[in-house]
Amino acid sequence: MSYDPSNIFAKILRGEIPALKIYEDEAAFAFMDIMPRADGHVLVIPKAPARNLLDIDPAALAAMAPALARVGRAVVAAMGADGLTLQQFSEEAGGQEVFHLHFHLLPRWDGVKLRPPGTMGDKAVLAANAEKIRVALR
Amino acid sequence: MSYDPSNIFAKILRGEIPALKIYEDEAAFAFMDIMPRADGHVLVIPKAPARNLLDIDPAALAAMAPALARVGRAVVAAMGADGLTLQQFSEEAGGQEVFHLHFHLLPRWDGVKLRPPGTMGDKAVLAANAEKIRVALR
Repeated sequence: MSYDPSNIFAKILRGEIPALKIYEDEAAFAFMDIMPRADGHVLVIPKAPARNLLDIDPAALAAMAPALARVGRAVVAAMGADGLTLQQFSEEAGGQEVFHLHFHLLPRWDGVKLRPPGTMGDKAVLAANAEKIRVALR
Repeated sequence: MSYDPSNIFAKILRGEIPALKIYEDEAAFAFMDIMPRADGHVLVIPKAPARNLLDIDPAALAAMAPALARVGRAVVAAMGADGLTLQQFSEEAGGQEVFHLHFHLLPRWDGVKLRPPGTMGDKAVLAANAEKIRVALR
């Protein structure tokens, strides 16, 4: 399986389509999932062109990994969450739908289940949550 | 929330209780989950004492991240899987039960769901799968 640079996250990285950006460093980029399974659902991706965990250069994974901790903490703080669930899917059998490696950061609250996938989030709510998380990252 | 060194994975790291070890490097340790939700279900943990993603030093996460890619690839190859699902739970609300940071690597096959959590695996099967994965890592 090879990397296809026409995937939607590659287009976001190239600035060809918009995204609600949360965070960026040399190796990582984070933005709001537009179909949030929880309020504050963020995706963190490497800038390196990697299809998924089975494809990424281990050094490139190491380079983007700190962003998972930094953004994860900010998401929990910003959203007043009780915990966090991280998910990453490799290949269709693993649950992958967009073929650029991405980590889901899902804020969690006691007793609250994740929403089913596939429903578009309200744009104003997404933008407001994005700003909360950006503030928490400062 | 602070780190409690009496957790079961800390005991495994200290060699106080046994585990089916798959892989070890300076920063990471990987072993079979004894309640596998899929055949070949492996846990990868940092050697650094970290409660979860919300607690780990970002540099320590970077140091152990290459193991996720290396072991993930070996798990898929060894088990003849079609894909991989990675999960990591932080705090009880996030799904965490053992409070040393751990990443679940779950081999996946087309059309096959994960088994429900909580059922002990057969010891002989766990040992056989562990050996397959060790061979794939060589």
